[in-house]
Amino acid sequence: MASTFGKIFSVTTWGESHGPAVGSVLDGCPAGLEITEEEIQAELNRRRPGQGKMTTARDEKDQVKILSGVFEGKTTGTPISFAVFNEDQRSHDYAEIQKWYRPGHADLCYDLKYGFRDYRGGGRSSARETIGRVAAGAVAKKLLKQVNGTEIIAWVNSIGEVDCGPLDLNRLTLEQIEKSPVRCPDLDASAKMEQAVLDARANGDSIGGTVCLLVKNPPVALGEPVFDRLDALLAQAMLSIPACKGFEIGSGFASARMHGSKHNDELYFDGHAYHTRTNNAGGSLGGISNGEPIYCRMAFKPTATISQEQKTAGRGGENGTLAARGRHDPCVAVRAPVIVESMAALVLADLFLLQKRNCL
Amino acid sequence: MASTFGKIFSVTTWGESHGPAVGSVLDGCPAGLEITEEEIQAELNRRRPGQGKMTTARDEKDQVKILSGVFEGKTTGTPISFAVFNEDQRSHDYAEIQKWYRPGHADLCYDLKYGFRDYRGGGRSSARETIGRVAAGAVAKKLLKQVNGTEIIAWVNSIGEVDCGPLDLNRLTLEQIEKSPVRCPDLDASAKMEQAVLDARANGDSIGGTVCLLVKNPPVALGEPVFDRLDALLAQAMLSIPACKGFEIGSGFASARMHGSKHNDELYFDGHAYHTRTNNAGGSLGGISNGEPIYCRMAFKPTATISQEQKTAGRGGENGTLAARGRHDPCVAVRAPVIVESMAALVLADLFLLQKRNCL
Amino acid sequence: MASTFGKIFSVTTWGESHGPAVGSVLDGCPAGLEITEEEIQAELNRRRPGQGKMTTARDEKDQVKILSGVFEGKTTGTPISFAVFNEDQRSHDYAEIQKWYRPGHADLCYDLKYGFRDYRGGGRSSARETIGRVAAGAVAKKLLKQVNGTEIIAWVNSIGEVDCGPLDLNRLTLEQIEKSPVRCPDLDASAKMEQAVLDARANGDSIGGTVCLLVKNPPVALGEPVFDRLDALLAQAMLSIPACKGFEIGSGFASARMHGSKHNDELYFDGHAYHTRTNNAGGSLGGISNGEPIYCRMAFKPTATISQEQKTAGRGGENGTLAARGRHDPCVAVRAPVIVESMAALVLADLFLLQKRNCL
Amino acid sequence: MASTFGKIFSVTTWGESHGPAVGSVLDGCPAGLEITEEEIQAELNRRRPGQGKMTTARDEKDQVKILSGVFEGKTTGTPISFAVFNEDQRSHDYAEIQKWYRPGHADLCYDLKYGFRDYRGGGRSSARETIGRVAAGAVAKKLLKQVNGTEIIAWVNSIGEVDCGPLDLNRLTLEQIEKSPVRCPDLDASAKMEQAVLDARANGDSIGGTVCLLVKNPPVALGEPVFDRLDALLAQAMLSIPACKGFEIGSGFASARMHGSKHNDELYFDGHAYHTRTNNAGGSLGGISNGEPIYCRMAFKPTATISQEQKTAGRGGENGTLAARGRHDPCVAVRAPVIVESMAALVLADLFLLQKRNCL
Repeated sequence: MASTFGKIFSVTTWGESHGPAVGSVLDGCPAGLEITEEEIQAELNRRRPGQGKMTTARDEKDQVKILSGVFEGKTTGTPISFAVFNEDQRSHDYAEIQKWYRPGHADLCYDLKYGFRDYRGGGRSSARETIGRVAAGAVAKKLLKQVNGTEIIAWVNSIGEVDCGPLDLNRLTLEQIEKSPVRCPDLDASAKMEQAVLDARANGDSIGGTVCLLVKNPPVALGEPVFDRLDALLAQAMLSIPACKGFEIGSGFASARMHGSKHNDELYFDGHAYHTRTNNAGGSLGGISNGEPIYCRMAFKPTATISQEQKTAGRGGENGTLAARGRHDPCVAVRAPVIVESMAALVLADLFLLQKRNCL
Repeated sequence: MASTFGKIFSVTTWGESHGPAVGSVLDGCPAGLEITEEEIQAELNRRRPGQGKMTTARDEKDQVKILSGVFEGKTTGTPISFAVFNEDQRSHDYAEIQKWYRPGHADLCYDLKYGFRDYRGGGRSSARETIGRVAAGAVAKKLLKQVNGTEIIAWVNSIGEVDCGPLDLNRLTLEQIEKSPVRCPDLDASAKMEQAVLDARANGDSIGGTVCLLVKNPPVALGEPVFDRLDALLAQAMLSIPACKGFEIGSGFASARMHGSKHNDELYFDGHAYHTRTNNAGGSLGGISNGEPIYCRMAFKPTATISQEQKTAGRGGENGTLAARGRHDPCVAVRAPVIVESMAALVLADLFLLQKRNCL
Repeated sequence: MASTFGKIFSVTTWGESHGPAVGSVLDGCPAGLEITEEEIQAELNRRRPGQGKMTTARDEKDQVKILSGVFEGKTTGTPISFAVFNEDQRSHDYAEIQKWYRPGHADLCYDLKYGFRDYRGGGRSSARETIGRVAAGAVAKKLLKQVNGTEIIAWVNSIGEVDCGPLDLNRLTLEQIEKSPVRCPDLDASAKMEQAVLDARANGDSIGGTVCLLVKNPPVALGEPVFDRLDALLAQAMLSIPACKGFEIGSGFASARMHGSKHNDELYFDGHAYHTRTNNAGGSLGGISNGEPIYCRMAFKPTATISQEQKTAGRGGENGTLAARGRHDPCVAVRAPVIVESMAALVLADLFLLQKRNCL
Repeated sequence: MASTFGKIFSVTTWGESHGPAVGSVLDGCPAGLEITEEEIQAELNRRRPGQGKMTTARDEKDQVKILSGVFEGKTTGTPISFAVFNEDQRSHDYAEIQKWYRPGHADLCYDLKYGFRDYRGGGRSSARETIGRVAAGAVAKKLLKQVNGTEIIAWVNSIGEVDCGPLDLNRLTLEQIEKSPVRCPDLDASAKMEQAVLDARANGDSIGGTVCLLVKNPPVALGEPVFDRLDALLAQAMLSIPACKGFEIGSGFASARMHGSKHNDELYFDGHAYHTRTNNAGGSLGGISNGEPIYCRMAFKPTATISQEQKTAGRGGENGTLAARGRHDPCVAVRAPVIVESMAALVLADLFLLQKRNCL
C-alpha cells in the first residue's frame, strides 16, 4: 500500500504523467461534510501548470470529477473518488529519453526496481501524481477549517540565493502569497526570485528553493507518541513530495546550535488555555501539537530535467550525453505550496480523527 | 498502531521510563538469520546511559532478554520479543513535576491528549522507549549486512557551535567514531565538543547538536514510489526520535540554493553497474535507492530538562517556576547515533523485503 | 482504510450503485505481468446483470477502463486504476425507499452509522461495489496462473433445498460450470435450481444458496501464522461479499462431529513432494497452505429486496409496510461465483507476495 | 504485521509454546480505563490448561504481568504489554516429532514456509499463543462493558454428535456456562459431552465440537462497509483461532435454504429505538451492527495430536508411522469459549473506536 497515506483518513493516488488519467481515492472521510467539485477545482488550479512564465508551458485544465462518495452535496462517509483526465499529451519522439537516463531523475531507479518503465515522462515520479493529493487535501482542509477553524498556508521562502524577508506570521494571508507569481509574500524578494527563475530558464537550467508551511489554529493533542508523531508524519509527508530534500520544524537545524535555556519555550496559562511565549518547538512537543502554530520549512532541489547538455549513461550501459527537450518547470518550488498545504492537511485530518479515540 | 513501524519487517515498541520494563516485538523477520542476545546487547550498550560525563548519571545495565522468535540461534520467522527490565528507579519526590509542566517537554501535550499522564518521568516520550528500537535495529543491521554487505554508521557532526571538520566518508569507520566520548570522529572537534557539553552541564543547561548518517553498500531499488519513498520513510524514522527537529538528505537544504546543472549527479556505467560522480542526491532519486551511499543529517534540539529555573505553568492553571532535579543528558545528540542507525536499518530492512515482490 | 483489502497486493474499491461510476485501485502488483482490458472484461461479463431470467433485468455493459499502471500491455508495478461508468440509472421515484427501511437490508444501519445515506439504491452495500473486486481479482488470477499454474473456480452448490450431486473435483472445469444458467455443474440439479429461482421470482420472493470454491495447484506455504492465516483471510474475504452469512473450509462444520483419527489427513511423500490421502483440512493446516486443493463452502442468504409486502419501520419512527419495486436478482448465489473466485485470488496473491520474504 | 490484529485498537501477540514466555502488546486502548492484573488473570484462568479431565494435564499457572501502559490502576493510552512466563516445560525426548510430521498439524507447513521450525511443540501454531489474545481481550471486554453495557459470552454447543438443547438466549449467563466442565449450559447434554470426551481420550483419540458466541447490547453502527464488515472481521477473528474450520452468523448456512420472505427480519420502532422481531441476521446487516444481539457459531476440528498410531511422512521424505506422546486436550472446543469471546471483544472494541470518526 505504498500509494496509500493515512491510517483512517487515507488517500490512495494513482496515475502516470502520460497515461489516460490521474486521480485518487479518499477513504475514511466523516459523513456530512459539504464539498463541491468547484472547491476541489480551486485548489487544483493553484497547482496546475501553464500559469505563466514561472511554470511549465504544458497546458492542462486539470478538470476534476468526483465519481463517488458525495451525495446531495455532502460526503457520505464512503470513499471519494477523484479523476482528472490527461489532455495535453503531445506526440513526442521518445527515442532519446527511452535510451538515456536523465541525471537527477528517477529513470534509472525505476528500471532497477521494476525491470522496465513507462519512459514517456516521469511516470509515477512525475509531479502530476500530486493532483490526487491536492484533490484529497482540499477535503482535509475543509474538514479542519470546519472542526477547528484551522488555516493552512504555504509560501516560497527562497529561490536560489534570494531569501524572503521577515514576515509577520500572525497577519500573513493566502491572498498576499498568491499575488506573487513565485508565491513569495515579500514583494521585493518576489521580484528578484522571478528574475532568478527567468535567468535559469534562459540558461537552459533550473533552480532550487525553500517553502514554508504555517498552520494556524491547529487542533491540540494531535500526533501519536513514538512513530506517528506529528512532526514525523509531516516529515514523511513533505519528503514524499517530488524534489523535496529537507524538512525542519520550529527552529529546526538552528536548534542544534542552541542551549536549552534559550530553546525551551516558556509556558503560561492565560486563564483559558496554555500558550508558549516563543515557538521554537514549531507547535509540536513530544510529537504532539500544543496548540501553537505549526511551522515548518522544506528544501526543494532544482528541477532535474534541464535543456543543457549533460553527461549520462544509457539503458544498454553506454556512456554519452543528453540534452532534454520539452516543457518543464524551471523551479519546482513555485508550484509546491499547494501540495505542501495538501499534505499537511492530510496528516492533520488523519491525526484529528485518530485523536477522537484516545480518551474514554 | 502508532507504536508500530514498518509494513512487513515491523517493530512495535512498548514501555515507559519508570514502569517495570521496556521492550519491543519485531515481526516479519525472515527465518534463518543467526542472532544472539550478545549482538543485541552490544548495540544497547552503545545507547545506555551512564557512559561517563557526557551522558546522564542514571545507571542502567539495560540487559536484554529475547523471549521468543529465536530457536537454536536462528530466527524462526515468528515475532521476536525483546524485554529490558528497568532497574535504577530511584525513589523520588515527584510532587514538583507532577504539578509543573516542564518547558520544552511533552508533559502538557500528554495531559491534553489523554487527560492524565505517568508523571514520574518522560513516560512514552522518554528516550528509554528507544531501547526497543535499538534491539530490533540490531537484527535489521545483521540482515542487511548479510544480504548486501550493508554498513550503517552515524556520528555527531556538531554540538552547539562546534562543527566536525571534513571527513573521508569512504574510510570512516565505527571504531573511529566510538573512540570519541561525544562520537565525533574529528578528534580536535571532539575535544571542543566535550568542553561545550561540560560547560552546558556546569551551567545547569543543555546543548543541541547534529548527527550524520551514512549507509554504505545499500541494496539498490529500495523505496516505493509516492508515499513510502526511501527519503520520506527515513525522514519519518528520524523525526520519530525524541528531540529530532530536522532532516536533510544529500545536499539537503543546500540544494535549494543550487542550479540543476550543478546539482544533478552525472551518471556513468563502469562496465558492471551504474554510478554517479557526485552524490548530491544522497543515494535516493525519486525516493528509490540508486546504490550510492545514503547520506543524511539530522538536527537534535538541546535536552528540554535543565536544572536552571524556568518560568512555566502548572496543571491547575497556575503560573510559576520550575528548576528540574534529577539526572539528564546535557546533550541528547551524543547517545543518538546508535538510535539513528537502528531506525535507518529498520527502514531499509522493511523496504528490502518489500522490494522482493516488485518483479515477477 | 476499510475499503482496502490486502497488505501488499492491495485493492481499494470505490463507488455506489447509483453514482457516476464504480471502480478500484490495485496497488502492489509486480511489474511485467501481461494484462489487457479484454481479460478484465471477460471476468466482469460473468458478474454483470442482465444475463437472463436468473438475474436482475438491470442491463449494464459494465465496460471497464484501465486508467493507469499498464504500459505496452504489461503492468508497471504502479497502481492499476479501474473504472466502470454506470449506465442504466433509470429515473425512479425514490420516495418510498427514502422513507421506509427495507427489511434485511443495510438501510437502517447506514443511517445509524453516518446520519444519512444515498437512498437511491444499495449505495456501498450494493453488489455493484464488487465490480472493482472482480477487476482486481482478474489480475490476481493471472498472476497466480503464471507463477504456479493455479486455477480458481467456484460454482453454485445448492439453491434453497436443491443440492448439487457428487462431483469429481479433479476433473471439474469452469466450462462445465458456466454452461449452467445457475452455475451448477450437475445439470439435473441445475434444472431444479432454475425452477426454484423462477418460482421465487414468480412469488415476488427470493431464495438463498451455497457456493463452493476450489483452488487447484495453490502455491505451498501461503498464509501467515496467527491472524493472517490463509483460512482466516479467506473467511474475511468471503464474509465481505454482500449476503454471505457463513464460511467453512475442508470438512468445516462436519469436522466438529468427527474424531481426530478420522479427521487427520494421512501424510505421505511421493518422491517429489508431500501429499495427503484425504483433504479434510481443505488445503490449509495451521493457516498455511500445504499444497492440496483449497476447498471452501459459503452460504448466501436470499436477496433482501423482494416485491412481497413486508412490515417495516420508517425513517421518522413510523411503523408500516413496504413492497419493493424495481429489478433485483432473485438469488444472489447465481452471480456470486466470479466474486468468490476474485476474492480468493486477491487473498492468495497477497499471501504469495508476502511469502517471498519469509526465508533468507 | 501478521501477528497484529486491529486497526487502532490493535494487539500484537508473540511467543512459542516451548520458549521462555508468551505475551502480547495492546496498542490504541483509550486512556483512563481502570484495569488490574487480577481482571486479566481471571480470564486467563478460564483458558489455562490443567482444569480437570476435560483438558490437557500440562499444568501452567499462566501468571500474567502487565509491563507497561497502566499507571495508578488506569490505562494511560500507551501500549499495554503482557507477559506470561512458561513454566511446565518438561524435559522431553523430541527425536520423534523432530523427525515425523504430525498428521493434521502444521509441522510440514512450517517447514515449507520457513525452512525449519521449533520442533518442540506447536510453536506459533500452539494454543498457548492465544494467551496474549485473552489478556488483550480482557481489556476490550472491560471497555465495551463500560461504554455500552456490552456482554460477550460463548459456550460449547456440540461435541461430536452430542448437541446442546434449546436455550433461552435472553437469560443465558456466563455462570451457567462455567458450571459445566465442558462449558455447555444444557446440563444433560453437558454430561453426555463429558462422556464423549472421556471416551475419545480413553481411545487415544480426540473429538471436535462447535462453540456459540452471543454479544448482548452491542453498540450500534459497528462495522465498516466493504472489507471491514463486522461479520467479515468476526469471521477472520474466529478462523484465526487454532482448529477453527467454520463460521456462520445469524441463521448462517440455514439461511441458504430459506426464502427472503422468511429470512428478512421485520423492523419496528418501539418509541425509542429500532428493533427486529426475529434475528436471522445475527445482529449484522450490510456488515454493520443493528443493535440486536450478535450471534455466531464456530466449528472446531478434533485435536490433531492423538496417541493412536498414524501413518505419516518424515522430514527426510521417509514414510512411516507416529504415535504422539505427551499431554493434549482431547477436545479443543472445551477451552475455546474464552478465546472466542476475546477475539470478538477485540473486533468490537476496534470497530467501536473506528466508528467514533464516522460522523462530524
